[in-house]
Amino acid sequence: MIVVKAGGGEGIHYESVCDEIAALQQAGTRVLLVHGGSHLTNTLAESLGVPPKFVTSPNGFVSRFTDRAAMNIFMMAYCGQTNKSIVEQLQKRGVNAIGLSGLDGRVWAGKQKPELRAVEEGRVRILRGNLTGTVQSVNTGLLHQLMESGLLPVLCPPAIAEDGTAINVDGDRAAALTAAELSAEQLVILSNVPGVMRDIRDPASRIAEIHRGEIESVSEQFAAGRMKIKLLAAAAALDGGVRRVIIADARPDRCVHRALAGEGTVISPGPANS
Amino acid sequence: MIVVKAGGGEGIHYESVCDEIAALQQAGTRVLLVHGGSHLTNTLAESLGVPPKFVTSPNGFVSRFTDRAAMNIFMMAYCGQTNKSIVEQLQKRGVNAIGLSGLDGRVWAGKQKPELRAVEEGRVRILRGNLTGTVQSVNTGLLHQLMESGLLPVLCPPAIAEDGTAINVDGDRAAALTAAELSAEQLVILSNVPGVMRDIRDPASRIAEIHRGEIESVSEQFAAGRMKIKLLAAAAALDGGVRRVIIADARPDRCVHRALAGEGTVISPGPANS
Repeated sequence: MIVVKAGGGEGIHYESVCDEIAALQQAGTRVLLVHGGSHLTNTLAESLGVPPKFVTSPNGFVSRFTDRAAMNIFMMAYCGQTNKSIVEQLQKRGVNAIGLSGLDGRVWAGKQKPELRAVEEGRVRILRGNLTGTVQSVNTGLLHQLMESGLLPVLCPPAIAEDGTAINVDGDRAAALTAAELSAEQLVILSNVPGVMRDIRDPASRIAEIHRGEIESVSEQFAAGRMKIKLLAAAAALDGGVRRVIIADARPDRCVHRALAGEGTVISPGPANS
Repeated sequence: MIVVKAGGGEGIHYESVCDEIAALQQAGTRVLLVHGGSHLTNTLAESLGVPPKFVTSPNGFVSRFTDRAAMNIFMMAYCGQTNKSIVEQLQKRGVNAIGLSGLDGRVWAGKQKPELRAVEEGRVRILRGNLTGTVQSVNTGLLHQLMESGLLPVLCPPAIAEDGTAINVDGDRAAALTAAELSAEQLVILSNVPGVMRDIRDPASRIAEIHRGEIESVSEQFAAGRMKIKLLAAAAALDGGVRRVIIADARPDRCVHRALAGEGTVISPGPANS
């Protein structure tokens, strides 16, 4: 089984990802898709006059501050247009897709972190009411039941907190936990970068291969922002038993095939061979 | 089992419907919820500068013309904010809800009617590219499987055409077919009117009871627009074996309880007793 996470950044088109997922399924490979929706969320929020609010934590992570108005827009973009368009595209290709957020059937249950420490004008402030958190468990029973009935789950945030509150969670980390809990062999993380880069401005500087034992030092030296989180996700997936994680580019044709063929940053268990 | 259809018109609040559904489920009654989203769709479309287009058919039915831009907004409002907020509200009340559109797992499969005859400036015109149709079959296998696992399905349009295209369908008629196919005993259709009215301006003119054999004449004499469609839906539900349909007001407190207690227009099988 393969878990594919397709980011929702600018320039990513789901049609070709759907072509490939349909081909994989028809060839007998079980696939589960996790998707993002950040670009649409941002443009929708701007159009509606509720611009997204990003905050920087004291250790430099940039994250979205999600109040109720932002959550409504997030649900529209992720669970509405993006999720249902992907389901429609897969259904048109003969794949019986079923789109679920982490709320539905408590697919992704987690913990809300209502307070957020943020650096604003050089000072650390505590922001409250943040509908954000982390996925801690996956309803594998429901996902297995659906897949055994021939359905292909298409998952997206938000997840659900213990008390039922919708929480925005990181899609890469949710995909990693899902891959681990479902005992997937491979996790493909697609976004609008070619992989982990030594120099973000130089496409030729992609790091072709990393082993689990090297993730922290590679992250320290070469990764920033979103890529640090992708590497955390990769580490969690490998620690959970996934045999291979590929961080790859979603933008070229046949991006899933390219990623599975190793075109990206391939992350494997164990220390480096050297 | 009871199927509750809660419309998405102005002034309808799903929180109290969710309270009642949670109470019913805790009392051991199996419930399935179908919801609308028309008011949010309209306000969202206006906010985004893509105002909804309504057309009038030659026989006087008003319907929404759904092109691709309108379908995207429809998905945001119905499958995004409305569906996921309801699922969140139910989860907060301890109900393990799962929100699905008719696309997901082909829950509502139907037929697209891409051409629409519309009266514009007194002339009948054919409008093409309408992503609209009618539900013809319900994936009862999937719904039974979910309900047997303790999940409460929360369904909304769009449905899916044979070729996988998302189609806007009437929620009342979809709910009626769902109730019939699932052998539900009762169908409650809630919207922002008190029931079938002899005079739409006089709340005291509500018709308390109708039998199946009287539906066509009541529709002819007293119903217009949306209410004609609700009566068609009621007829289809009864013809499909549902024992009781109640068209009732979604706006008062405890609206589901009131409807089940007969406060609305109760429609039963058979000809009139008189």
